[in-house]
Amino acid sequence: MTNRVLAHTGAKYPIIQAPMGWIARYQLASAVSRAGGLGIIETSSGETENCKAEITKMAQSGLPFGVNLPIMFLRDDAMLRFVCDSGVKFVTTSAGSPAKFIGPLKDAGIVVYHAVPTVDAAVKCVEAGVDGLVVEGAEGGGFKNPEEVSTLVLLQAIREKVDVPLVAAGGICDGRGMAAAFALGAEAVQMGTRFVSSAESPVHDNYKAAITGAKETGTWVLNKKASPCIRAIKSELTKEIHDAGVMPPDVLKNILGVYFGGDMEAAPALAGQTVGLINEVKSAHDIIDETVAQFHQITGRLGALAAARGF
Amino acid sequence: MTNRVLAHTGAKYPIIQAPMGWIARYQLASAVSRAGGLGIIETSSGETENCKAEITKMAQSGLPFGVNLPIMFLRDDAMLRFVCDSGVKFVTTSAGSPAKFIGPLKDAGIVVYHAVPTVDAAVKCVEAGVDGLVVEGAEGGGFKNPEEVSTLVLLQAIREKVDVPLVAAGGICDGRGMAAAFALGAEAVQMGTRFVSSAESPVHDNYKAAITGAKETGTWVLNKKASPCIRAIKSELTKEIHDAGVMPPDVLKNILGVYFGGDMEAAPALAGQTVGLINEVKSAHDIIDETVAQFHQITGRLGALAAARGF
Repeated sequence: MTNRVLAHTGAKYPIIQAPMGWIARYQLASAVSRAGGLGIIETSSGETENCKAEITKMAQSGLPFGVNLPIMFLRDDAMLRFVCDSGVKFVTTSAGSPAKFIGPLKDAGIVVYHAVPTVDAAVKCVEAGVDGLVVEGAEGGGFKNPEEVSTLVLLQAIREKVDVPLVAAGGICDGRGMAAAFALGAEAVQMGTRFVSSAESPVHDNYKAAITGAKETGTWVLNKKASPCIRAIKSELTKEIHDAGVMPPDVLKNILGVYFGGDMEAAPALAGQTVGLINEVKSAHDIIDETVAQFHQITGRLGALAAARGF
Repeated sequence: MTNRVLAHTGAKYPIIQAPMGWIARYQLASAVSRAGGLGIIETSSGETENCKAEITKMAQSGLPFGVNLPIMFLRDDAMLRFVCDSGVKFVTTSAGSPAKFIGPLKDAGIVVYHAVPTVDAAVKCVEAGVDGLVVEGAEGGGFKNPEEVSTLVLLQAIREKVDVPLVAAGGICDGRGMAAAFALGAEAVQMGTRFVSSAESPVHDNYKAAITGAKETGTWVLNKKASPCIRAIKSELTKEIHDAGVMPPDVLKNILGVYFGGDMEAAPALAGQTVGLINEVKSAHDIIDETVAQFHQITGRLGALAAARGF
């Protein structure tokens, strides 16, 4: 039995931390990687120098890790070139076509997974030469494709059309979702909201409390007919946006007020539907250990059904 | 190992056919039940006398079956009383509070499952005394809760709060989805779109072809801010409704033109996201046999991961 995502990443467990802007930096990513998962450093904040410093710290740590390159957000090739020269072994690309990035990244010996929200995008990326895909179901937080397809359906639809390893993202925060994703053909899971609300996440406690306190119906998808389309926690601000149907263009400019100021009305607080499943702030170590244990407990229970040809 | 849904329904396999108005009648339901699943007779069409005749035929067949009672759509207690007197053993209620229906149904020895789209609704129904729940994820077709929560998240969220058996509905059309649902705590699955497009479904071939030909992004959720909120296949008509944001109140009045006339623009053609996974018209027998075989193949594969403590 082989797991291609483990072979590609060098992580102990196929559990990847999502690349949340400003949040996915050394403090969080190193905790995830030390716990056996795969920490990812973000570059979507656009804070080029800070992100470079964080990548350097991760490379120096000796831990397995990855970097996310959100193609549309990168003003020039500087970050691409830096990543190619920095000992990075695993990159996820997102937000745009990876075609132009694949050549330089693979020349540098880097494994490339691209994040896709549809079958058409998945097929195009595989034709362009990616090594794997992050399959982004509609349940997830943050920037979304306005064509909402759930992880349950999207994973299967993409699995039918491509042979590369799939990382399931959206709606997964523990071993239950991980086991379901593996039933559908995934070889790894990516968790965002779960790690935003982890002990090592740098965000304000108010943000973590908003996640642990919300119901499964506690998020909206906003701005579906414009860009960016996002999933965020229900609040007075996001109710206004939801009722209006569109988002003011500068509404995300105070996002750091949410993340680090703890003002939950400063901007839409990005999060996925797993807010309804996450009830507690836990360390990255506990999250990953419990996820793996629960995954094996559930797969063991399902294996017993198969052995008995029962239900 | 016991499966409570099998004990409650008398079916051989925990695979339930959804109660689509006009479509879920003897021809389809008996084929599903003969194949080892559980056929359900609809009453949401409001065609009281026809539905009573279909229930009588199912009862005389000796096959296990159920009846759906959509509470808000029933003008009076006539159908409830008929069901209580007709040898029906299993009822799913939906669209409204089951509280008043549970007493009479249970006095008649009938097992009652209610269909719910949220945790709050699930908890209320269990307090009211239902025997089980149909958990309706946002992926499914037809009448939807405008608060969209995917099957992946909703099943887990409800499983945490209640102990009754759960039937997963929405996004499931074969053994992959069934294995995922069981990983998340379900004891059965319900399939709508899959059986609408089955050989024994009475609908026009154009409707079946629209399902087998659509992509995973091939449906819209329409009319979220009004009632009824529905998921339907993309078409010229549904694009107009989608762009307008609201649905004309009489837009479903020509639904039989879709179902039996094959005019895919006569009304919104109700269907779930599984249109992206269903590529072929198959018999109910093949659907159920293949679902069961695939379920055991996948659960066996997952069991091997557990045994190896691997991924």
